[in-house]
Amino acid sequence: MKAAIVTIGDEILIGQIVDTNSGFIAKALDKIGVQTHEMLSISDDKQHILSTFSKLQNKVDLVLITGGLGPTKDDITKKTFCEYFDDTLIENREVLAHVTHLIENFFKRPINQMNRDQALVPSKCQVLFNKVGTAPGMWMQKENTIYVSLPGVPYEMKYLVEEVIVPKLVTEYKRPYILHKTILTYGQGESLVAERIEAWENNLPSFIKLAYLPAPGRVRLRLTARGENAQILEDEIARQVQALSQIIGDIIVGYDENETLEVVVGKLLNKANKTLALAESCTGGKISELVTSVAGSSSYFKGSVVSYATETKIKILGVLPEMIETHSVVSAAVAEQMALGAQKLFQTDYAIATTGNAGPTAGETNEKVGTVYIAIATPNGCISEKFELGEPREKVINRASNKGLEMLQKEILKNI
Amino acid sequence: MKAAIVTIGDEILIGQIVDTNSGFIAKALDKIGVQTHEMLSISDDKQHILSTFSKLQNKVDLVLITGGLGPTKDDITKKTFCEYFDDTLIENREVLAHVTHLIENFFKRPINQMNRDQALVPSKCQVLFNKVGTAPGMWMQKENTIYVSLPGVPYEMKYLVEEVIVPKLVTEYKRPYILHKTILTYGQGESLVAERIEAWENNLPSFIKLAYLPAPGRVRLRLTARGENAQILEDEIARQVQALSQIIGDIIVGYDENETLEVVVGKLLNKANKTLALAESCTGGKISELVTSVAGSSSYFKGSVVSYATETKIKILGVLPEMIETHSVVSAAVAEQMALGAQKLFQTDYAIATTGNAGPTAGETNEKVGTVYIAIATPNGCISEKFELGEPREKVINRASNKGLEMLQKEILKNI
Repeated sequence: MKAAIVTIGDEILIGQIVDTNSGFIAKALDKIGVQTHEMLSISDDKQHILSTFSKLQNKVDLVLITGGLGPTKDDITKKTFCEYFDDTLIENREVLAHVTHLIENFFKRPINQMNRDQALVPSKCQVLFNKVGTAPGMWMQKENTIYVSLPGVPYEMKYLVEEVIVPKLVTEYKRPYILHKTILTYGQGESLVAERIEAWENNLPSFIKLAYLPAPGRVRLRLTARGENAQILEDEIARQVQALSQIIGDIIVGYDENETLEVVVGKLLNKANKTLALAESCTGGKISELVTSVAGSSSYFKGSVVSYATETKIKILGVLPEMIETHSVVSAAVAEQMALGAQKLFQTDYAIATTGNAGPTAGETNEKVGTVYIAIATPNGCISEKFELGEPREKVINRASNKGLEMLQKEILKNI
Repeated sequence: MKAAIVTIGDEILIGQIVDTNSGFIAKALDKIGVQTHEMLSISDDKQHILSTFSKLQNKVDLVLITGGLGPTKDDITKKTFCEYFDDTLIENREVLAHVTHLIENFFKRPINQMNRDQALVPSKCQVLFNKVGTAPGMWMQKENTIYVSLPGVPYEMKYLVEEVIVPKLVTEYKRPYILHKTILTYGQGESLVAERIEAWENNLPSFIKLAYLPAPGRVRLRLTARGENAQILEDEIARQVQALSQIIGDIIVGYDENETLEVVVGKLLNKANKTLALAESCTGGKISELVTSVAGSSSYFKGSVVSYATETKIKILGVLPEMIETHSVVSAAVAEQMALGAQKLFQTDYAIATTGNAGPTAGETNEKVGTVYIAIATPNGCISEKFELGEPREKVINRASNKGLEMLQKEILKNI
């Protein structure tokens, strides 16, 4: 089964927002063996939508469309649908009742004409009921191609993809088996990694494809196997990964692409039955946000102090004023006292502390932009490290947050 | 001038990475009046690349291609270029010297064959010298369409777009003038905003287009004017914004596309010379992250306590245990005590506190998923409000964070 993903919206074409919907859909499709052949972003324009549909007609089996739905956008998209499928709009009672309920309960006002119009759908379409928003999804077919229209609001799109479309595709359509395996390597560049594994790569069976995904300081290798027999694919991938680890085992650091550092750290803390607190200065709450983004984090995360002001570091975290005077507020000594302060305040086993200068200007210390000290308080003491994380601000905050979690991970592993 | 942006890479089509390059390029082009007609993501496949080029030939003036370049990917893309332009590869001396220099200095090893091959370029192409990486950009033309190939690594692509391509387009090609103006509104849904401004919208001149960009709790309105005379566009946009502010001035919070609620709140606090602290439970550091994402926030933001555990609320924020017993930890009374506790602890003028259930499960209280209490401590007391913010977790956290900042903004405005 081959798919195309189409995003409708001028806001994407002028670069005002980045399209993250297509990636989410592609990942969901890939998991169930539906291959995304192409992604397109086009304008809110009837002719553009029609010509795109025509180009994809019978070239792919499935066209997933996001955007172009919503109280002020429905009009063009739905009318275009009607034109393409030679159909007319009718009012769907169930959708109308749902829209009315949502508006009256959430916005505490009667529905207006625009809300009422959201219940209009092409007569031939199968309505995909949207429990979490007002714009319904629509499923239509022309010859060999299915067209599914979804709202562009990410959580509404996600709900419909996960709860409605994927289950429907799984039960009603035949798909091949696709298996991916990602190998994370750190510390060597793409061309050197490629040189080292060249002989192995040339001997890969034809149903397995290798891709290099380089990023600063690391290269991910992705193996993709495609076929009808799941067991054969799984066995062969396992064999190849084993062979690969014998060649470049020295630079391989992991195998699970979804396992973000905050998820890994959460699992480790749960397993060890240990707790965590944070004292964040230059990261300003970013590590807290990452840690609490994991459902169930309340079992190991006790809390954090975002100590932006120097007096907060002294008063709440117990950093000694003379320590700040001697070493400056951006220093290993202060980072360590902050970590120990948080560990004591929240009575946890571990604590991460950050202090540094995220920019854009040098701030109250002489440390240059991008300098960050990170400390980890553990059951056996406290360690710290200095980093130069460059600029701009956003990058420093993100990098420091990752470094903090990475250091914590290492310390937990030492103590398990 | 009309452009298409093409991204080459299977990693995007399986949803492993989100394409942020296209958005960056679109924004850069939009600024100089080049209109992006379409964005496409296609696979690392020769036939797919060739058929995409053919479809775009003479339909757009400029095709910007990212990805498909790099030591292990060069091969297909460059050979495809040669086939499409009926050309052959030749070694470019300047590029070879640069690649050799980079590899020898950065990786401390001699170049290998793969590195050497990076200096091969189609003979007819204009090489776009890539100072920050090994893969050069290539500029070619066929009939009325220019094709520019760029490496996919974001900072290399950004360097070539900003330093080479944009200056070249600006000096060598004629482009119209494009002007955008964004108006940020908070607190009313898309359909209600649309209803209120319907008459104004219907009277907009034909060279100005209006777009609605809804997000949880807010709607951005974007006016886009296009024409030959910059002054006329600027005057008309100013006039229309003025007219709009007379209709919905009560919900407009800013005009700068980058002026998020946290920026607006920061400006207000600075103007009033007031300070802010936070006590976050269910928002888990998200409000701290938003507040500190603003450069210069240290002048008004003193810090926050992320009080995930109940004992943290009691011990650090001074919430009375009997208050929690009587009202439960998710209640208006506890939210208010948290806000007052943070205000006192950090000695600030204002404090925001959140307590609620972000999900996915009901947690330790009986409050259902999505219930959040938000309190604002002010110099004149404390107010609080209850919200039902639905699900999933991510949405509850984002909405509650926005609501908190919105409530704070209103309170500051009352006291100015």
